[in-house]
Amino acid sequence: MSFTLRHNSYGKSSVRLTKVIRTQQRHELMEMSVDLLLEGNFAESYLTGDNRKLIATDSMKNTVYVLAKENEFTSIEDFAHLICRHFCKTYPQVESAEATIAQTRWERIELDGKKHPHAFVGGDSEKRTCSVKIGKQGATATGGISGLEVLKTTDSEFSDFVTDRYRTLKDAKDRIFATSVEASWTYGQSVSDFNGCYAAIRAALLATFATHYSLSVQQTLLAMGEAALAACGDVRDIELKMPNQHRIPFNLEPFGLKNSNEIFVPTDEPFGMITGVVARK
Amino acid sequence: MSFTLRHNSYGKSSVRLTKVIRTQQRHELMEMSVDLLLEGNFAESYLTGDNRKLIATDSMKNTVYVLAKENEFTSIEDFAHLICRHFCKTYPQVESAEATIAQTRWERIELDGKKHPHAFVGGDSEKRTCSVKIGKQGATATGGISGLEVLKTTDSEFSDFVTDRYRTLKDAKDRIFATSVEASWTYGQSVSDFNGCYAAIRAALLATFATHYSLSVQQTLLAMGEAALAACGDVRDIELKMPNQHRIPFNLEPFGLKNSNEIFVPTDEPFGMITGVVARK
Amino acid sequence: MSFTLRHNSYGKSSVRLTKVIRTQQRHELMEMSVDLLLEGNFAESYLTGDNRKLIATDSMKNTVYVLAKENEFTSIEDFAHLICRHFCKTYPQVESAEATIAQTRWERIELDGKKHPHAFVGGDSEKRTCSVKIGKQGATATGGISGLEVLKTTDSEFSDFVTDRYRTLKDAKDRIFATSVEASWTYGQSVSDFNGCYAAIRAALLATFATHYSLSVQQTLLAMGEAALAACGDVRDIELKMPNQHRIPFNLEPFGLKNSNEIFVPTDEPFGMITGVVARK
Amino acid sequence: MSFTLRHNSYGKSSVRLTKVIRTQQRHELMEMSVDLLLEGNFAESYLTGDNRKLIATDSMKNTVYVLAKENEFTSIEDFAHLICRHFCKTYPQVESAEATIAQTRWERIELDGKKHPHAFVGGDSEKRTCSVKIGKQGATATGGISGLEVLKTTDSEFSDFVTDRYRTLKDAKDRIFATSVEASWTYGQSVSDFNGCYAAIRAALLATFATHYSLSVQQTLLAMGEAALAACGDVRDIELKMPNQHRIPFNLEPFGLKNSNEIFVPTDEPFGMITGVVARK
Repeated sequence: MSFTLRHNSYGKSSVRLTKVIRTQQRHELMEMSVDLLLEGNFAESYLTGDNRKLIATDSMKNTVYVLAKENEFTSIEDFAHLICRHFCKTYPQVESAEATIAQTRWERIELDGKKHPHAFVGGDSEKRTCSVKIGKQGATATGGISGLEVLKTTDSEFSDFVTDRYRTLKDAKDRIFATSVEASWTYGQSVSDFNGCYAAIRAALLATFATHYSLSVQQTLLAMGEAALAACGDVRDIELKMPNQHRIPFNLEPFGLKNSNEIFVPTDEPFGMITGVVARK
Repeated sequence: MSFTLRHNSYGKSSVRLTKVIRTQQRHELMEMSVDLLLEGNFAESYLTGDNRKLIATDSMKNTVYVLAKENEFTSIEDFAHLICRHFCKTYPQVESAEATIAQTRWERIELDGKKHPHAFVGGDSEKRTCSVKIGKQGATATGGISGLEVLKTTDSEFSDFVTDRYRTLKDAKDRIFATSVEASWTYGQSVSDFNGCYAAIRAALLATFATHYSLSVQQTLLAMGEAALAACGDVRDIELKMPNQHRIPFNLEPFGLKNSNEIFVPTDEPFGMITGVVARK
Repeated sequence: MSFTLRHNSYGKSSVRLTKVIRTQQRHELMEMSVDLLLEGNFAESYLTGDNRKLIATDSMKNTVYVLAKENEFTSIEDFAHLICRHFCKTYPQVESAEATIAQTRWERIELDGKKHPHAFVGGDSEKRTCSVKIGKQGATATGGISGLEVLKTTDSEFSDFVTDRYRTLKDAKDRIFATSVEASWTYGQSVSDFNGCYAAIRAALLATFATHYSLSVQQTLLAMGEAALAACGDVRDIELKMPNQHRIPFNLEPFGLKNSNEIFVPTDEPFGMITGVVARK
Repeated sequence: MSFTLRHNSYGKSSVRLTKVIRTQQRHELMEMSVDLLLEGNFAESYLTGDNRKLIATDSMKNTVYVLAKENEFTSIEDFAHLICRHFCKTYPQVESAEATIAQTRWERIELDGKKHPHAFVGGDSEKRTCSVKIGKQGATATGGISGLEVLKTTDSEFSDFVTDRYRTLKDAKDRIFATSVEASWTYGQSVSDFNGCYAAIRAALLATFATHYSLSVQQTLLAMGEAALAACGDVRDIELKMPNQHRIPFNLEPFGLKNSNEIFVPTDEPFGMITGVVARK
């Protein structure tokens, strides 16, 4: 046969896990979805259907729950490291293991200003994310945030861009700026506190979005990336993807009215997509 | 022809609107999606394609934006009333108009404990909802909440239910209780404060979910409905739909481990669906 | 307490089932999702948490699979009847049982013009649906179709509708007509052949959509409903919901070009929603 | 400042387009969603908010529609090339342009065995896809398919995989095999017929899935990749991603019944993910 299997990998996706840590005072809740991907000496399964080196994806799923039970961890980054180390250590045929985790936000319900010990409210599109890969070349780890929806009603311009045959958009000196921030940062080799790093970066992204006077989504993206790196010294670089979720001023002229930046149509499609990677010099 | 058009209605759905109210101190933001449905003397369009009595759904869409511009309102219930009155008043062929609105939650970003005047964070699955219908018989109005995701890690039992051939579920003396509350309440004829009513009911639902010791989802549903009615005297009844979003204890026995209510599998399908309508006596 | 539980019901939703019937020649495949809802004497569970009359929704789920194993059936309508009869017959506390089923389309893969005996292709948004309710007043049954996406590029007009301040849409003598048909028909008391009825109605809906010269979505809806009733004498009436999934001509004038009904923007939001119920006289 | 902008790109996503080509006999329909991404000399917009080199994403959107009007093309690959060439040629600041297109399937409605000239049925999860990138190093192009849902009820085994503490899955000598094929193939430098290549690969994937006796998803994936390469000589390699969409035999033993491979639970989560790249030697 004149064909070759150039690359292969396999794993289990969307392994959903809820872990409750019960202390006297209160319960801690972690809820997440784990994707696991292995590379290694699995070609025989592709070539001949000989599965003797294959770890069933069902067994991978079991392993996630067993590791969650047998280990203490307080961040998804720690748990992802645990999982990857387990697969690399246990199976000689595994050359690399990658665990990608997305954690659901659950906030404690507040009653009379006090956080409840075991009742939570969720439903947020925002997830905390991480991805850890361990292989022969060592370990790499990223942390991240996805689905962080933010909107500001002013302090955003967009003007003086290319004018040619294809332009119909007018200069805007005051517009709504809305986006769903997706951030992914690379951790350095030794990180003391994944949770502290995540919290500092999240706060920096929100504060910068709120307070930066924006001449373009691009400019605000860079400012947010710089603030994130300034907030956590353990991070080498950060990639930001910021879709421009347009609020289009509704044209009230046919009705004899003036739209003084009050009435907008939120649209999902099409959307601008602005990306950038900010790194330490 | 031996067939008859027994009923008809038509309208525009998913009219999305962002309204910004700009004051010196700060900007108010309302974002919503409006569904509009008309009944009336429209049969000719069905029978012969004579559209002279039809208000185009595109015109309905325009009307929503024009009314948003020309009127001040502070609740979706007020806006839904405005819309319905407009259509009933303007077009003799309209027999009833129904406006159903879902409002997105946008919370102000907090910096150093202070709420920002024009920057917001969103992304919540929870919506505030309402439905107003105005016709010959007068007006009816409901308020509501959908997608309010809550979870408690304890103080929930389910036991002593029917035991027969089809039962495999064990009694649970301590389980996770998670649901996505959908509530819809009927307003009485004169309501002073839609926003106050909504806020009071939302707080009552959350507090009762958190603190009620649950012997069944059904029992907690009733307690939540009673608390909602107690919280707002302007409401006649409340319907609650509470899907039981199961967290299934993962079976650790095959691995020689004991699951002390720590490790669960969150599942979307299938789910229990518990409903009830609670009314004043 | 001054409140009362006015209504209650509960059940299990999204019970997904794949049934394979293996004959010598070929395999038959049925895949569906079942929603089950019970009404009856369940108030104690709400009022006091006494669950002794409750059939756990987990047991309901088990029952669906057991009934699928123990019975032969060739239509979702037959299976829904089986399920409802089981619950009404087995549990005196059940006053009514309602089963709503949505069936996924799987077509046989064709190789060299021959349908494969056990390999299928799916992925269609279209579902076959039914809802059966059995209670003290006897049985009612509906069949249906949802998600049937159709589009015609011509033979559709929309003009001469209401002209007033809110109209900006021009008359269209030739437009794209696209919709996602949702149909639900009521079966008479004795139906010989649910599958035949479904197939005849589906064919009538498609043929009428394709060949009807449309002066409005409303007019085509009525024609489709009449054709459906003509196609199956066992059906009393049919409800159609036809969202107008707009293809908006892109304005090419700013670029010095003319759009001769060639270039359109498909949009999801907002959309017109046209509905009607057609019945026998 | 001690930070640097290491990478940037931006563009417009989800530009949806319907193109109708009207001939005497019949109408051709192409419907697609275009994502466009540019790299180049745009750093000033990030660094200072100077947007003079930025082509607004709104202008990119306009360009897609203008190019669709001004050019004849019969494949999404051809259209993607047109788009990329336009941006590279028109703007010196553009270093590379990438267009990714997903085309919706619309099949002609068949009446009495004849395909209708202008009425179509759609709703398929399956999309035809392509991605073209043109830059200083020349052009690269891939074609693809996503969301092709297939299922076979037999001729699939999975056994003799790793047995250890984490395994609970039994050997299966006869199981359901269901997946949603995602394929992406790399075109060589000169391709005569993109549509012919797509059709040949699609047919090869379906036929191989149907007829290959499967000892693992991995083995069938390789066979499908080889068949695809054999079907179209213009393609260099093909990447396949095949999630294992499990149909889990429902355990009927608690009910005194035997499940002879008849009754299954389709599940979405978790799922196995099997991937591979097959290339010519």
